[in-house]
Amino acid sequence: MTRIVFVLVAVGALAGVVTYMAPAFGQADGEAAPMFGIKIPPGYRDWRLISVAHEEGNLNDLRAILGNDIAIEAYREGKLPFPDGTIIARLAWDYVPSEENNKAFGRRQSFVAGPPKNGVQFMVKDSGKYASTGGWGFAQFDDGKPASEAVHNTCFSCHEPAKVRDFVFTRYAP
Amino acid sequence: MTRIVFVLVAVGALAGVVTYMAPAFGQADGEAAPMFGIKIPPGYRDWRLISVAHEEGNLNDLRAILGNDIAIEAYREGKLPFPDGTIIARLAWDYVPSEENNKAFGRRQSFVAGPPKNGVQFMVKDSGKYASTGGWGFAQFDDGKPASEAVHNTCFSCHEPAKVRDFVFTRYAP
Repeated sequence: MTRIVFVLVAVGALAGVVTYMAPAFGQADGEAAPMFGIKIPPGYRDWRLISVAHEEGNLNDLRAILGNDIAIEAYREGKLPFPDGTIIARLAWDYVPSEENNKAFGRRQSFVAGPPKNGVQFMVKDSGKYASTGGWGFAQFDDGKPASEAVHNTCFSCHEPAKVRDFVFTRYAP
Repeated sequence: MTRIVFVLVAVGALAGVVTYMAPAFGQADGEAAPMFGIKIPPGYRDWRLISVAHEEGNLNDLRAILGNDIAIEAYREGKLPFPDGTIIARLAWDYVPSEENNKAFGRRQSFVAGPPKNGVQFMVKDSGKYASTGGWGFAQFDDGKPASEAVHNTCFSCHEPAKVRDFVFTRYAP
């Protein structure tokens, strides 16, 4: 029994080391976005899927919304407001017709993700630090570089209509 | 030093227990799909994202393609053919206009994932077991139940045009 307790503590300690090292590595040369001071969260491309969407018009993209472990757990348990530490990522790619898929389906119907487009966006929950914007910090990066302060100024007002769901539009897709 | 080695072995042993228990739990009451005998892989909803797509026409869905660790690694390293053990999952949801998002954007442009639709599909790589179908086994489940043999009969022929990429249409979205 003593042995098992020791192992579990050791596992926790190792996990701690990993948690500590990952941000240091991923953010080593990252620039913080204006207003909210958010850097690109390391490893976000490995996060689990919350949902997908398509925007027409000027955006004309296919997008995926991913969440860190805290986000996914909150979604699955219907936890509102989202707990501090939640990070939600919005990736997007060009909306491209697939001739190859269309041939397989026998008609023009298939649209796939092309090159990355419209930047990568993050919502970071920290109810203390971001109290004046519903507890959320917002960030957009275009080709890895933070977007302008003008862009970041639009984030919170745009998310206000979703106040009833803690300012998050995206619902979890089962 | 001795202490650290002991801990790592213990971590490995714990991981082994988890790996062993997961399939047993996830497949406990799962029914195998016809022809290829594939059951729903446990935990597939937690897999990482390969890409997203939209199908018009009868399908009229938004879809996400997820991969197990072997799949994601192969994609990122450009490994072809995919190694045995690769599993690729195709999830799909109803293609639903979002009035809420449209209000935020100020025009009708936003489509989001509604309820699950068109089943969940899997491609499982086992070059020995599935030698006559390019090394891939195929499976579709509708509401958790295997689709008919007639449905499974169409899988491989439909994927043949993608032979040059080991019968996989979907490209990795960075």
